[in-house]
Amino acid sequence: MLHPVILSGGSGTRLWPLSRQNQPKQFLALVGDHSLYQETVLRASKLPGAQPPITVCADDHRFMVGEQLQAVGIASGGILLEPAARSTAPAIAIAALHALARDADATLLVMPADHLIEDEAAFRAAVEAATGLAHDGWLVTFGIRPDYAETGYGYILRGDALGEGGFRVERFVEKPDKATAERYVAEGTYAWNSGMFLFGAQRYLDELARHAPAILDAARAAMAAAKADLDFTRVDRDAFAASPSDSIDYAVMEKTDRAAVVPVSCGWSDIGSWSSLWSVAQRDGEGNRYEGDVIAVDTRDSLVRASERRMIATIGVEDLVIVDTPDATLVARKDRVQDVKAVVDKLKSAGRQEHLFHRKVYRPWGSYDSIGVGERFQVKRIVVKPGAALSLQKHHKRAEHWIVVSGVAEVTCDDRVFDLHENESTYIPLGSVHRLRNRGTEPVELIEVQSGSYLGEDDIVRLEDVYGRS
Amino acid sequence: MLHPVILSGGSGTRLWPLSRQNQPKQFLALVGDHSLYQETVLRASKLPGAQPPITVCADDHRFMVGEQLQAVGIASGGILLEPAARSTAPAIAIAALHALARDADATLLVMPADHLIEDEAAFRAAVEAATGLAHDGWLVTFGIRPDYAETGYGYILRGDALGEGGFRVERFVEKPDKATAERYVAEGTYAWNSGMFLFGAQRYLDELARHAPAILDAARAAMAAAKADLDFTRVDRDAFAASPSDSIDYAVMEKTDRAAVVPVSCGWSDIGSWSSLWSVAQRDGEGNRYEGDVIAVDTRDSLVRASERRMIATIGVEDLVIVDTPDATLVARKDRVQDVKAVVDKLKSAGRQEHLFHRKVYRPWGSYDSIGVGERFQVKRIVVKPGAALSLQKHHKRAEHWIVVSGVAEVTCDDRVFDLHENESTYIPLGSVHRLRNRGTEPVELIEVQSGSYLGEDDIVRLEDVYGRS
Repeated sequence: MLHPVILSGGSGTRLWPLSRQNQPKQFLALVGDHSLYQETVLRASKLPGAQPPITVCADDHRFMVGEQLQAVGIASGGILLEPAARSTAPAIAIAALHALARDADATLLVMPADHLIEDEAAFRAAVEAATGLAHDGWLVTFGIRPDYAETGYGYILRGDALGEGGFRVERFVEKPDKATAERYVAEGTYAWNSGMFLFGAQRYLDELARHAPAILDAARAAMAAAKADLDFTRVDRDAFAASPSDSIDYAVMEKTDRAAVVPVSCGWSDIGSWSSLWSVAQRDGEGNRYEGDVIAVDTRDSLVRASERRMIATIGVEDLVIVDTPDATLVARKDRVQDVKAVVDKLKSAGRQEHLFHRKVYRPWGSYDSIGVGERFQVKRIVVKPGAALSLQKHHKRAEHWIVVSGVAEVTCDDRVFDLHENESTYIPLGSVHRLRNRGTEPVELIEVQSGSYLGEDDIVRLEDVYGRS
Repeated sequence: MLHPVILSGGSGTRLWPLSRQNQPKQFLALVGDHSLYQETVLRASKLPGAQPPITVCADDHRFMVGEQLQAVGIASGGILLEPAARSTAPAIAIAALHALARDADATLLVMPADHLIEDEAAFRAAVEAATGLAHDGWLVTFGIRPDYAETGYGYILRGDALGEGGFRVERFVEKPDKATAERYVAEGTYAWNSGMFLFGAQRYLDELARHAPAILDAARAAMAAAKADLDFTRVDRDAFAASPSDSIDYAVMEKTDRAAVVPVSCGWSDIGSWSSLWSVAQRDGEGNRYEGDVIAVDTRDSLVRASERRMIATIGVEDLVIVDTPDATLVARKDRVQDVKAVVDKLKSAGRQEHLFHRKVYRPWGSYDSIGVGERFQVKRIVVKPGAALSLQKHHKRAEHWIVVSGVAEVTCDDRVFDLHENESTYIPLGSVHRLRNRGTEPVELIEVQSGSYLGEDDIVRLEDVYGRS
């Protein structure tokens, strides 16, 4: 059976300030209402015979993965938490082991979580072709027929035809210079290396055993010592970290003599920059893409994204990318957006946080947004999901006032447990053991005013936590 | 004696989004720490023999004028509230009547509140020259020696020399086209019409009597029926509104045979647009002016202003103006900033508020800032100045929670009056008569959470108000 494997890696700095380390590109709704991760699992779920998707992600993103799956009603085939980044070959190895434990005959469809595919029918046809080749023992990579001479991707040169629309891989080539890329496009036998693969899980492990046995050994040890944590599988840290870091391309695909490529034109994009998002977006007659509250005067060929409760006005500009978020705004020339990296590097070296977190922070129980800060106080807007609870906790350096603005909150404060209704408030003194819980069916929204000498997120002692964080 | 008259008119849309109808350009600190209005009164106060300045302003701006004077320690010579905009001739007429009531020999130095003068010594020398001419009965206008062929100003052609650096005015000319402006600059006998004047108050009224008697009659009637209100003089609405609307240039200066001009080079600018602010600002080696938290990569010849708690990043851009405020961001090509008017027009016709008010609103008792809004609640950060009090009031449709985060607030809630200290909170039920007062010497800062079905500013019944607003 076909087991989709979604690789949710990547730090996502290239779409800063919308993407942050704690919410990278794959979890953003960049095109339409769903995130790229959601689009990817939905696309996979429609394939004939597809099993629930296996997601490989970083520990920090586990609750987001869980919630985003739930939001689109897709059952999880497993959420494997990578304790360290070791590139794609080890990530696919643990997914293969996970799948084989359930289905000795598993076929894997490996897809990065952050790619866009516009033509799903063409994609499905390519998957069907690849499935046939995989049954014959081929390790199939999907090659995107190039629209133009892109220098940012690797290319695959195809060799002999294998039938079913597939070809033997003649050669993988690194990112070319412009002239070489133009030649590749003209020749018609080269395709972009999309990072999507299809093969038997056991075939992949067999090839790993041959070409990269240290990766396979580490993956086996890491999965043997893995621990279940709620809906997540915690892969063993030390065992996994011992794996060499290598991509599937280098570790397996370039070495095996059974690499095949299925070329496809499916409106694929990796949305690797703001300019590539602009190029795949629906645009108006002047070449503009606006999101949110934008008032534009004589503006052309630009991407403008306003954020909630804020407007952007543009006058007489062209070829710009303007992206607003609650704490940072980017204004960049469209052909210079790759230098977002330089801005993120400056933020890093200044010890700042705008590349790590959004002002609004998602937690397993809901979210909070720091809407106002002063010298000795902070105001947060907190939303607690139905049925959810924050940890039982206390703070050494701050007291908290809570005012419920919608829903009914159950409050624990030392020995007392009581309900707080809309428009009621309470006070949590410094040092008091407290908990906030939503036993209702609607979200609880409240305003928290913190006061004290130190208001950092690290002043928290978790005594009990239903999400395993204490 | 010399009575500075500060004309604080102008709707200030040209510097949107920083300027708003309720806080136009003259009240903004655009260059340095003081507002243009404060710079103007400070400059006037240093002139030999200068009396406290007389300010003519709109009713909406009276508390801002009072506070900005107080903040720089300048005593007021009167704050005259114009009940309607009638251009400069009537505004100067009421100021002349006000000055003559105190000093029968008053000389007026008329200055718009929103101009920048960099070379104060040159300005003082010009005032001295003009004072001599005024003693001889001349009505003096200050002509700015042009640096370049500006087409946005009127020009003054000088005639015969009058001694003391002054000249008879040969002719006032309207805003010229580019070629004409270039000729004016080349000829050296033309100067920009700065809108600054110096003359005897009685002389001005005499000329009005001759050339525009309806304006004088209206001004006399309006001042005769004026009412004192705290530190303000409320000019009579109906009488003032009956005045023709006309500028001093048309009504008097172009008609009198006693118009003189004193040419001066004093680093004058009317900061009529974001590009003119850029041109007078200190810039870095790449031609950029940054204010606030800005991270720039390869940016040139741009003006970038970040707002509090938010950062702006720029990449590869040039000749841009980027101005951020809590609720709106402008990105404009520097040579297109005059089209800010088009954005403001769009806001007006859409019935929006971003051209009228800032998110943070100044009141006579302090300020409030709406930091968070939801479906049935609003969170405000409120600051009450030492000694100040909000009106005794009630709301029909909202309850309020108050949490003091610094200082001590005196709270009235129906029959009770009590102190609320730092980190204490209280609740004002819907319909309760309440008041907030600061009896201390430090500002009181509090968080207000409003809840209810309607949260507009107009749901307020003022029962008592020390600022005359009930």
